[in-house]
Amino acid sequence: MDRTELRVGLVGHGFMGVVHSHAWQVVNRAFDLPVRARAAVLCGRDPDRTADAARRLGWDGHVTDWRDLVARDDVDVIDVCTPGDSHAEIVTAALAAGKHVLCEKPLSNTLAEADLMVDAAEDARARGVRSACAYNYRRLPAIGQLRELVHAGRLGEIRHVRASYLQDFFADPDVPLVWRMERERAGSGALGNLGSHVVDLVQHVTGLRFTGVSALTETFTRRRALPDGTGSAEVTVDDAALLTGRLGKSALATCETSWAATGHRNTLRLEVGGTLGAAAFDLDRLNELSFHDATGPRTERGFRRIMVTEPEHPHVTGWWPPGCAVGFDHPFTHEIRDFLAAIADDRDPTPSFADARQVQEVLDAATRSARSDSTWAKV
Amino acid sequence: MDRTELRVGLVGHGFMGVVHSHAWQVVNRAFDLPVRARAAVLCGRDPDRTADAARRLGWDGHVTDWRDLVARDDVDVIDVCTPGDSHAEIVTAALAAGKHVLCEKPLSNTLAEADLMVDAAEDARARGVRSACAYNYRRLPAIGQLRELVHAGRLGEIRHVRASYLQDFFADPDVPLVWRMERERAGSGALGNLGSHVVDLVQHVTGLRFTGVSALTETFTRRRALPDGTGSAEVTVDDAALLTGRLGKSALATCETSWAATGHRNTLRLEVGGTLGAAAFDLDRLNELSFHDATGPRTERGFRRIMVTEPEHPHVTGWWPPGCAVGFDHPFTHEIRDFLAAIADDRDPTPSFADARQVQEVLDAATRSARSDSTWAKV
Amino acid sequence: MDRTELRVGLVGHGFMGVVHSHAWQVVNRAFDLPVRARAAVLCGRDPDRTADAARRLGWDGHVTDWRDLVARDDVDVIDVCTPGDSHAEIVTAALAAGKHVLCEKPLSNTLAEADLMVDAAEDARARGVRSACAYNYRRLPAIGQLRELVHAGRLGEIRHVRASYLQDFFADPDVPLVWRMERERAGSGALGNLGSHVVDLVQHVTGLRFTGVSALTETFTRRRALPDGTGSAEVTVDDAALLTGRLGKSALATCETSWAATGHRNTLRLEVGGTLGAAAFDLDRLNELSFHDATGPRTERGFRRIMVTEPEHPHVTGWWPPGCAVGFDHPFTHEIRDFLAAIADDRDPTPSFADARQVQEVLDAATRSARSDSTWAKV
Amino acid sequence: MDRTELRVGLVGHGFMGVVHSHAWQVVNRAFDLPVRARAAVLCGRDPDRTADAARRLGWDGHVTDWRDLVARDDVDVIDVCTPGDSHAEIVTAALAAGKHVLCEKPLSNTLAEADLMVDAAEDARARGVRSACAYNYRRLPAIGQLRELVHAGRLGEIRHVRASYLQDFFADPDVPLVWRMERERAGSGALGNLGSHVVDLVQHVTGLRFTGVSALTETFTRRRALPDGTGSAEVTVDDAALLTGRLGKSALATCETSWAATGHRNTLRLEVGGTLGAAAFDLDRLNELSFHDATGPRTERGFRRIMVTEPEHPHVTGWWPPGCAVGFDHPFTHEIRDFLAAIADDRDPTPSFADARQVQEVLDAATRSARSDSTWAKV
Repeated sequence: MDRTELRVGLVGHGFMGVVHSHAWQVVNRAFDLPVRARAAVLCGRDPDRTADAARRLGWDGHVTDWRDLVARDDVDVIDVCTPGDSHAEIVTAALAAGKHVLCEKPLSNTLAEADLMVDAAEDARARGVRSACAYNYRRLPAIGQLRELVHAGRLGEIRHVRASYLQDFFADPDVPLVWRMERERAGSGALGNLGSHVVDLVQHVTGLRFTGVSALTETFTRRRALPDGTGSAEVTVDDAALLTGRLGKSALATCETSWAATGHRNTLRLEVGGTLGAAAFDLDRLNELSFHDATGPRTERGFRRIMVTEPEHPHVTGWWPPGCAVGFDHPFTHEIRDFLAAIADDRDPTPSFADARQVQEVLDAATRSARSDSTWAKV
Repeated sequence: MDRTELRVGLVGHGFMGVVHSHAWQVVNRAFDLPVRARAAVLCGRDPDRTADAARRLGWDGHVTDWRDLVARDDVDVIDVCTPGDSHAEIVTAALAAGKHVLCEKPLSNTLAEADLMVDAAEDARARGVRSACAYNYRRLPAIGQLRELVHAGRLGEIRHVRASYLQDFFADPDVPLVWRMERERAGSGALGNLGSHVVDLVQHVTGLRFTGVSALTETFTRRRALPDGTGSAEVTVDDAALLTGRLGKSALATCETSWAATGHRNTLRLEVGGTLGAAAFDLDRLNELSFHDATGPRTERGFRRIMVTEPEHPHVTGWWPPGCAVGFDHPFTHEIRDFLAAIADDRDPTPSFADARQVQEVLDAATRSARSDSTWAKV
Repeated sequence: MDRTELRVGLVGHGFMGVVHSHAWQVVNRAFDLPVRARAAVLCGRDPDRTADAARRLGWDGHVTDWRDLVARDDVDVIDVCTPGDSHAEIVTAALAAGKHVLCEKPLSNTLAEADLMVDAAEDARARGVRSACAYNYRRLPAIGQLRELVHAGRLGEIRHVRASYLQDFFADPDVPLVWRMERERAGSGALGNLGSHVVDLVQHVTGLRFTGVSALTETFTRRRALPDGTGSAEVTVDDAALLTGRLGKSALATCETSWAATGHRNTLRLEVGGTLGAAAFDLDRLNELSFHDATGPRTERGFRRIMVTEPEHPHVTGWWPPGCAVGFDHPFTHEIRDFLAAIADDRDPTPSFADARQVQEVLDAATRSARSDSTWAKV
Repeated sequence: MDRTELRVGLVGHGFMGVVHSHAWQVVNRAFDLPVRARAAVLCGRDPDRTADAARRLGWDGHVTDWRDLVARDDVDVIDVCTPGDSHAEIVTAALAAGKHVLCEKPLSNTLAEADLMVDAAEDARARGVRSACAYNYRRLPAIGQLRELVHAGRLGEIRHVRASYLQDFFADPDVPLVWRMERERAGSGALGNLGSHVVDLVQHVTGLRFTGVSALTETFTRRRALPDGTGSAEVTVDDAALLTGRLGKSALATCETSWAATGHRNTLRLEVGGTLGAAAFDLDRLNELSFHDATGPRTERGFRRIMVTEPEHPHVTGWWPPGCAVGFDHPFTHEIRDFLAAIADDRDPTPSFADARQVQEVLDAATRSARSDSTWAKV
């Protein structure tokens, strides 16, 4: 066996499967790594569509049952890009079979499933088998730079965080029902789908954890047509969720998620303020970071727009010369680069399943608060 | 008596007194009005400082007791620019004496005082005596334009409001104690001082009222040095407050106020989103309004930056040619222009004391929620 | 005679006359000065309109012939707000009569007139009589701050200047002819009207002077209807002018002016770059300055948005607390404040007539180049 | 021979070679195309470095002489990513050998070489052999959208274009000499390297061609250290160039290029204004287009920020869902997609060599003008 090649099996060829396919095949051209990834087997349920996707997306072969994939000797890594309700089963089986696992976010729909996955990851780790959850936005250069500023103390003690993830995909009441709007399938709505990113980023960037939250949710469109035109059904998840929370001892956070936010296609904003400075990020301008250094002369202070496109910036090295922008897909490649490098170095990649489970805990507390008149819920 | 001249008595010559002095003397040069205002009498407690201020700020005379001012026959209007704990006494006396009253915001420190003032205003109104509360930001052209867009239905049904008023004046723990940090004097901290603007604007612009709120407050610096260097004292108000709330039937609002927000000197932001569009305002760019019309072709949608400097825009007429910016002081002049015009027309100026009292009700609910684990408080 | 009061006579009550009226009456309320200005006499040609303007704009009296105004003993200052073709005659007479003179820009329509005015100013100065040309934008806080950065060496040696003044007032071919479009009255079009501001600001801010220019002009609408509907006439000035030039030894400047620039109502932009940094100003956001300090670590560099609203910033002191914006009119008041202060201190106010004449020299060179196939014209 | 696979030979593995390698291998995963590209042979002069690059960048094989590459039967396409002085020789040989050719910009260093290449392309075309010049920025979605707005008449008749390409790579006088600073190797400096992009984009977007230009150039650092430390040498090209020009009948263009522009790492800006609207692009925010529609009500006009990330936008289809940003590399993939599609359809890809030659003509006229006191030079 060639220790320098890792053969990857990918489960799912929807949106995330496509982006991950790209990243697995780009990573070794962009970065010098001690191991090479091979796009070996694609797994999907429908034989024809999977075969077609495998050909188009550049996979050597394909299978239609993830159990077969997990059982194969010629696969070293399982990448899980399926909906959340299937994560626990696939991931625990893959880890038990000795495969390294990368799992899309959110980790799971329930805390109980997350517990199983964390336990499985702990077991596997003892055997040198690695796992990570794919919170892609962590690997944006601008997010990396924001985190470095915080960790270097440039913002001082953190006091204020404001974060929002706003989309407009379901603003129109005439958009038919999709599975994301059913509680049984998706767990929650904007809160889980978008809020998981928000909660993970806030904690990742500040190094602080939510200790409690208050939440308010709303479903603007309570009934939607069925896609097949046979009638309509109730929407059983939230369209929008507002959170207020405490981070660490005294920092305050205010978070908002909505997929009915007209005017915002895919806008994730994060601002962090402390005693010495502040910094802000906006996914609409993902190569930029705004930074305000409050330690200089008052007459020269201001938010500066840093183009986070220098080789010295986090995650950037390996791509193009200074001054060249990255796009939506690059952080996925960074994520896979770091995953591969950790395996090669016999280290744990990040974020761990335990990190991802803690995000679910925060969302769980938010759900409890929303159901109890916004009353404070400890995490 | 010359019915076309209104003789004004102004109580207070601090920050607000200075701005109001400016506005009373500029208003008739900038706008054609059926009445002229005369800067007649300035009232302050310290004789020397008041005399000096009267000379510098262009007042005909001065007095040191507001009771004397209210008793004078040669004064038609009382403008109250004192701290909130004295509003009720001065205002009710002035109205009883038949003087029109303009009162700075917030209306009062307590709902009980606000009730007295509202009652006095109702009585006075029956006698043709007018009153208004001075929420200056309502008269910003960009705020006026935002309100017009909402009222013309251009945003559709309102779903999301996000508002914040962030300052950094008290971010530094070494700033000594001021009266604004004492609950007995100021009622609350950032919540009342900044939050009153936020609540008033949100409601003014959307035409919707808060029906309930959840709140979270924090005091980052709990003890501060006394200004005279004799020791330190406890800070008894909030440095920051987060609110989530419902407006009307289903719209959601998230509001944040802080005077410890490093990086933001005086930043009031307001964004409103509905089913057909969205619009955003930022006090740092007070001549602009961002507007997103979601009814056009998808490929051409975007937030447009409207320079709100055309004569057709609200409040603008009378100043300079198209394309010329207004500053911090112009909305005060608009406010006084509208106040004078209402008196001349025998109408009620806005916002009324009842409007201003309702803002206090929202803040009162927020205070209750903050003291009760953020549990929902109805307004 | 009260040496602490200066009685002002203002010639002209159009746009500039209105703004100057405002400034003369606001200046002593806003700033502590050793002299007080009195709005004494307004001068205009039409008796009724002048009387009405005097009343409305707050002038004690009015006259209809500037010769009468200049002859009066009870006037100490003449402020000239008439079109450029009358400047030389009024100004030289006023100076000869011992009046301090403030003259609107551009100084004159021809260099020959400018020479007369400069000579008259030199003579008057020997008698303690002061004069200045009113380039209002110099007194914008952000422009002051930009100049301070350059003069403190924060940008290093200047290499690049890009400046533009774009308006859209005459973009529409259906706008009828106005005097500004006639060469005999106005000298030139956008080049003189807008370009004078650009040239003055570029030189004021950098401390460098144009040594030569190349220019290209265009008249998009060559014939326009007469305002009275009696036919049409030729437009004899430029709608737009492009300049490239050298400043000092090696800096390059590119300038653009147009009053047919759709999308820009009143947009004056200025960017200066040197070996150590760069800074940019935009009149649409007149309270801001963008500053890029290229001496810090590469990963933290960026244009920072300074809100130029602190008391330590140039020109700001005396207005409102930190963080409050100024508008279009405030620099006019600063200009008059500095003019009064210079008279009180027996100093020359700035910019001098000689400074203003040098701006005309640059525009004159541009006109020569434009007529000679853009061939380089020395200044 | 498999008509659906095109075997590519790439000459050069510097910056452009790396980006093109990426694009050739990504294109068929991202887009459904009737032909598939195969990364067959990489060509470089140094055997070891080329072998290493071929392995790293995913090429099947490698050669060290472009003549061998051109001679091979198993190569269908030659992609030329070498410096400009070698373009003519390689390209003409490749076309003569019946290979389709993609050639990096600028097409050549001299018009004489460009003529040879255009002739060779015409000959080849008659035999069904295709060629194009790789002006990558044309395939940015925002540039495509800007062009569509112009071509749909949304801006009306074009009047104003302002364009700049500013970099800071050589702002520091201590950066040693590189070949780009030698006239014999590079032809010109910022003018050719950056100005070629500017000229191509201006013409591509407006559909108008430069009819004449005036130019001004400067070399700020006239002597630089040699990279090997053996002394210094003269810089024989420009650091910066300013152009003014006419487009079509009456539109005016002002262009600026500099690689000594402190504060700007890689900033390409383009603004186009016409009688009905205006639009602006900034490479720092490459997923956005600013558009001002001047046909609506005056009170609602403003530059709107369109996120050019919808599937209906030019070039976007095939990547991620709506709202996801592209980066620096995506337009290269679009370029290769369109090149492949044209070959498959037996059409000419764009821009042609003749288009690219015309850009060189404009730059040639600029050089002539700069050497003749900025006197107008016809194109």
